[in-house]
Amino acid sequence: MGNFRLDLCYDGTRYRGWQRLGDSDATIQGKLEQVLGRMTGQAVEVIGSGRTDAGVHALGQVANFHAATAMTAPEILAYLRAYLPEDIGVTAVTAVDERFHSRYNALEKTYCYRVFHSDGPCVFQRRYVYQMAEPLDLEAMEAGAARLLGQHDFLPFSSLKKAKKSTVRTLRAVELTQVEEELRFTLTADGFLYHMVRILVGTLLAVGQGRLAPGDIDQIFALGDRSLAGETVPAKGLCLMEVKYP
Amino acid sequence: MGNFRLDLCYDGTRYRGWQRLGDSDATIQGKLEQVLGRMTGQAVEVIGSGRTDAGVHALGQVANFHAATAMTAPEILAYLRAYLPEDIGVTAVTAVDERFHSRYNALEKTYCYRVFHSDGPCVFQRRYVYQMAEPLDLEAMEAGAARLLGQHDFLPFSSLKKAKKSTVRTLRAVELTQVEEELRFTLTADGFLYHMVRILVGTLLAVGQGRLAPGDIDQIFALGDRSLAGETVPAKGLCLMEVKYP
Repeated sequence: MGNFRLDLCYDGTRYRGWQRLGDSDATIQGKLEQVLGRMTGQAVEVIGSGRTDAGVHALGQVANFHAATAMTAPEILAYLRAYLPEDIGVTAVTAVDERFHSRYNALEKTYCYRVFHSDGPCVFQRRYVYQMAEPLDLEAMEAGAARLLGQHDFLPFSSLKKAKKSTVRTLRAVELTQVEEELRFTLTADGFLYHMVRILVGTLLAVGQGRLAPGDIDQIFALGDRSLAGETVPAKGLCLMEVKYP
Repeated sequence: MGNFRLDLCYDGTRYRGWQRLGDSDATIQGKLEQVLGRMTGQAVEVIGSGRTDAGVHALGQVANFHAATAMTAPEILAYLRAYLPEDIGVTAVTAVDERFHSRYNALEKTYCYRVFHSDGPCVFQRRYVYQMAEPLDLEAMEAGAARLLGQHDFLPFSSLKKAKKSTVRTLRAVELTQVEEELRFTLTADGFLYHMVRILVGTLLAVGQGRLAPGDIDQIFALGDRSLAGETVPAKGLCLMEVKYP
C-alpha cells in the first residue's frame, strides 16, 4: 500500500470547491478521485490539507492518497497530467511515509487575496481578482492588520455559527503589497476557519474605506460578534498559496 | 460630428476575431458597434488599427469611430465600461481630430507571443500561452531572429496566397525574453501580414528545435516559399501590445 503526496494548483472558477459532492465533476476532490480511481482500479480517497470553497483557487494545495499500486510517483504524475482537465494542475507527486496525512500534519497555511484596485479594465485577471475602485487608506489598513496578528479566537471573523472545536488560531503574518493596480493581502496562520480569510480581508477593506477604525478590531475580538466585522469578499480573489509541513 | 479614439484590451478566447461578422456578439468590432449603436441611436462603424484573428488577444488595440453625439469622451468611456462584456476593456476614449484614422495612420505595431516552455501545469495562464516542453536552442533562435530583421518581402511568412498589395514590411525588432518558465517573443514592425507573427514564431521555434537552421531563413526569403517556413503557432499565445501613431 503506497501513500502519495500530491502538490496541486487549480483554477476554482468552474468548481463547487474542494470537497466531494454527488457529481464528481463538480469538485476538485471528486475529479481527482475519479481519475485516480480509473488509474488504480480501486476506490481512492483523496485527503486534502483543507477544503477550499467554491470559486477559490490554489497554487499550492497539498493532498495525499493511499493506494495499492505498482506505479511509481513519476508514472502517477504523467497519468494525472494526461487525464486531469486543464484547470487542475499537478506540480508534483511524491511517495511519502504511510503516516503522512495532508490535513493532520499541516503546520501552517498561506493564502493570498487579490484586489484589483482600479475602475480600469481587468480583462486577463478578471477570474482571479476582486475589483473595487473606492479609495483606500493603506496606513489604516496596515494598522488594522497589526491588530489581527497573534493568537485570538477568530470566531467573529468566520461564518461558523457555534463551533464544537476550538476556534482559536494564530495569525502569523498579514502582508499588504501593492503591485501596479493590484493590492495583495498575504495571510499566514496555523489554520483558518470557514470564510476567515475573506472576512479578514473584508474587514481590512472596511478599515481602508473608513467604515471601521483599526481599533474596532480589538472590539470585535472582545465581543465575538460576527456582525461587527467586514463583509465576506468574493471567492474569486482568493488563492491558497502554500501549506507547510514539519 | 465627433471622431473618438478607443484604446482597447480584450481576451480573444470567446471571439471569432476583430472583424464584424453576421452575429455581432461573435466579434470584437461587432460587439463595439452594437454597444455604440445603442449609445448613439445611429449605426456606428468602428475602424480598427488592424484585424486580430479568432482567439488572438489585445492589450493595446486602437480603434476610432465617427458619431454625431453630444456625449463627452469620459461619458462614452463610462457607457462602454458599463455595457461591454468583461472580456473587452476600454483603457481610454479620446476626442481626436476628424482626420484621425486608426488603420491608415498607424506607424508601427508590437505583438507579443507567449510560449509556456514546460510540461508543468499552466492553470492560470492557459488561455494566453502556447505550451510546449521540447528543448529549445535559444542561441540558434536569436541568430534566426537577427536574420528576420529589416525590410523584406514577408509573403513566405504569411498565409496570403498571392497578394495584390505589397507584402514588403520592415521588421524593426524581435526580442526573446525568458520570464520564469515562459519564453516571450516581442515583434515590432511597420505592419504585419496575415498570420505573419504566428508563422515567424513558428519558424523560430523550428530553428530552436533544430528542424531549421538560422541560415534557412535567408533561403525562405530568397525562394519566397511558405512551405519552407515553420508552422502557424496557435492564436491563443498572441497578443497585440501596442500601436504607434505620429
